[in-house]
Amino acid sequence: MSANTKGRLLLTAQGMNSDHWTRVLASGGRDVVLEPAAGEDPSIDYAVLWRYPHGLLKRLPNLKLIFSAGAGVDHIMSDPDIHGMHANVPIVRVVAPNLTQHMVEYVLWRVMDHHRQGAFYRHQQAQRTWNDTPQPTTDRVTVGIMGLGELGRSVAAKLGALGFNLAGWSRTQHELPGVDCHAGPEGLTPFLQKTDILVVLLPLTQETEGMIDYDLLTNLRQDGPLGGPCLVNAGRGRLQKEADILRALDDGLLKEVSLDVFEREPLAEESPIWQHPRIFVTPHAAASSDPDHLGPLMVAQMEAFERGEPLKHLVDRARGY
Amino acid sequence: MSANTKGRLLLTAQGMNSDHWTRVLASGGRDVVLEPAAGEDPSIDYAVLWRYPHGLLKRLPNLKLIFSAGAGVDHIMSDPDIHGMHANVPIVRVVAPNLTQHMVEYVLWRVMDHHRQGAFYRHQQAQRTWNDTPQPTTDRVTVGIMGLGELGRSVAAKLGALGFNLAGWSRTQHELPGVDCHAGPEGLTPFLQKTDILVVLLPLTQETEGMIDYDLLTNLRQDGPLGGPCLVNAGRGRLQKEADILRALDDGLLKEVSLDVFEREPLAEESPIWQHPRIFVTPHAAASSDPDHLGPLMVAQMEAFERGEPLKHLVDRARGY
Ligand SMILES: NC(=O)c1ccc[n+]([C@@H]2O[C@H](COP(=O)([O-])OP(=O)(O)OC[C@H]3O[C@@H](n4cnc5c(N)ncnc54)[C@H](OP(=O)(O)O)[C@@H]3O)[C@@H](O)[C@H]2O)c1
Ligand SMILES: NC(=O)c1ccc[n+]([C@@H]2O[C@H](COP(=O)([O-])OP(=O)(O)OC[C@H]3O[C@@H](n4cnc5c(N)ncnc54)[C@H](OP(=O)(O)O)[C@@H]3O)[C@@H](O)[C@H]2O)c1
Repeated sequence: MSANTKGRLLLTAQGMNSDHWTRVLASGGRDVVLEPAAGEDPSIDYAVLWRYPHGLLKRLPNLKLIFSAGAGVDHIMSDPDIHGMHANVPIVRVVAPNLTQHMVEYVLWRVMDHHRQGAFYRHQQAQRTWNDTPQPTTDRVTVGIMGLGELGRSVAAKLGALGFNLAGWSRTQHELPGVDCHAGPEGLTPFLQKTDILVVLLPLTQETEGMIDYDLLTNLRQDGPLGGPCLVNAGRGRLQKEADILRALDDGLLKEVSLDVFEREPLAEESPIWQHPRIFVTPHAAASSDPDHLGPLMVAQMEAFERGEPLKHLVDRARGY
Repeated sequence: MSANTKGRLLLTAQGMNSDHWTRVLASGGRDVVLEPAAGEDPSIDYAVLWRYPHGLLKRLPNLKLIFSAGAGVDHIMSDPDIHGMHANVPIVRVVAPNLTQHMVEYVLWRVMDHHRQGAFYRHQQAQRTWNDTPQPTTDRVTVGIMGLGELGRSVAAKLGALGFNLAGWSRTQHELPGVDCHAGPEGLTPFLQKTDILVVLLPLTQETEGMIDYDLLTNLRQDGPLGGPCLVNAGRGRLQKEADILRALDDGLLKEVSLDVFEREPLAEESPIWQHPRIFVTPHAAASSDPDHLGPLMVAQMEAFERGEPLKHLVDRARGY
């Protein structure tokens, strides 16, 4: 790849619209392929990846830059080749305002449905019953946000504007206006103990995997104004233990749950989650990647890279996100 | 009632918690009764009213001031005695920030549920089906707000912060930042034609009664990004013709509806609204009157009145609200 040529790009994004992505990424005359040549393909410089088969990257000896087509990089970080032959290839996670906006909407929608007793009123309607239920104001309810990154911070700002109390939890300590911030393992229990609606916006890493378990859920505030704590997970499914969530619901330790992500996706048809009256399911649809918004940001980064400029939104391989 | 005595107050608020209201209104030593003396009761100076039996006010010859315990005054304005013997008694409609906050929450909750395809995903979940549906961003959706009073304006501000396009309609022309404002009968059709989600926050008056009818609904934008227009009524039930709403849903002219108010309340058990898959019912619970917030504002107005100071939030009898 000389200074005057544009690097060649492999797009492998299962479940996404490849035609649309290709159109956007190829704009400006860049060569985009959906399959590498058989065996080894030394012609590929860049890869845009989403749920690709592990083993694929082994066939790209000259890979210079990796982009995640989604906001999470867990699908890339779990690939052994990333830590082996491609241990020095930078991984970029572009962040589009439009994706953040969709996530803010999703969380607001679910938090409002729990706060305003959506499940109660839907059940009542099915019974043709006309009864009010006490409605606390937002200033009596604390939304606890796990993960104060791009998404968690934007969600906090919008929920704060509606008058909710806010608590936050992250790896490193943050200072955010109006958010009672906690950090690290020792900050977790005090954070949970004040939380009525737990919103999970963590990345999936070795440290976070499976952490939304029975023990964690029992630490949520039990005497809050909604009659029990609620959980919203829009991070990653493998952050949660679904059997533990079901047990906490059945034991009366959790009031209601909204899940956008699942341990295995699509959610198996036989999963008891589908028909649970206090779980609301969306099919990993909180904030879908939009090629029209993400593609140009990727193209801009490739061009910066080709001019020898520094990259933005690099994944920290040591942290795993 | 001399300058040194506190006026005596009659509280008649059916369906509200009289004990709680009495406690708040009697604070400071004011005499509060729930029933006037038999026959005529000249001892009553003030009345706090909600769904009271018409005929009651005839028995209060010395009434000096009327308060509505709810945000609407239609229940008072439809009383013949208000226009007869009490034609000169001022009617006060106190407005508590806490009630406005509850209404903002309700509207946001319902708008978000329509915007984020809640009905679609609930139906899918019941079928154990895992499918995404295209999700427009808020900047492609126009929320049209009928009524730009205390409530409509607050709702507009919060929806605008989420990126929705906003249109508004009122009796007199308004200028509101970020809201495409229309007024009067001639402004109605252009307002409706750009509206994807219609939010009704009008008072019930002779002019507005029954106006949410089939004709009006057919004027909503049909080619918007949500696949059809939605209706949210949190004003008053008699603004709407329920048979027309059902017809518009069945004819495919309306996609989904959220109703907090009904022509007759409680909604009759045999109403087809209860089981309609595209109508969401709440039992006039969007923004309940809270005596802890409204009571002190009423007491403050009585005290101002007794000091001969001007009253606030007076109903305009000519307008009817
Ligand atoms: N459902 C969907 O449609 C959808 C869409 C987009 C994204 N997502 C998910 O949302 C996740 C978050 O996105 P983002 O853009 O906000 O990520 P981000 O900017 O990387 O932020 C991640 C946050 O998580 C915190 N964190 C990471 N590891 C932690 C640990 N071990 N303990 C405590 N806190 C930890 C980080 O703490 P520090 O601030 O201290 O670093 C940071 O605040 C993504 O990774 C993805 O999985 C889901
Ligand atoms: N569901 C619930 O729990 C609940 C709770 C509280 C209130 N409400 C309802 O909400 C209503 C609105 O409350 P609010 O405090 O916002 O009232 P408000 O401050 O009096 O505002 C009323 C608005 O409606 C407009 N309007 C009145 N008549 C009209 C007409 N003929 N044509 C066009 N616009 C007209 C007014 O126009 P102008 O600005 O030009 O005067 C004003 O913008 C109340 O009357 C009550 O019925 C319901």
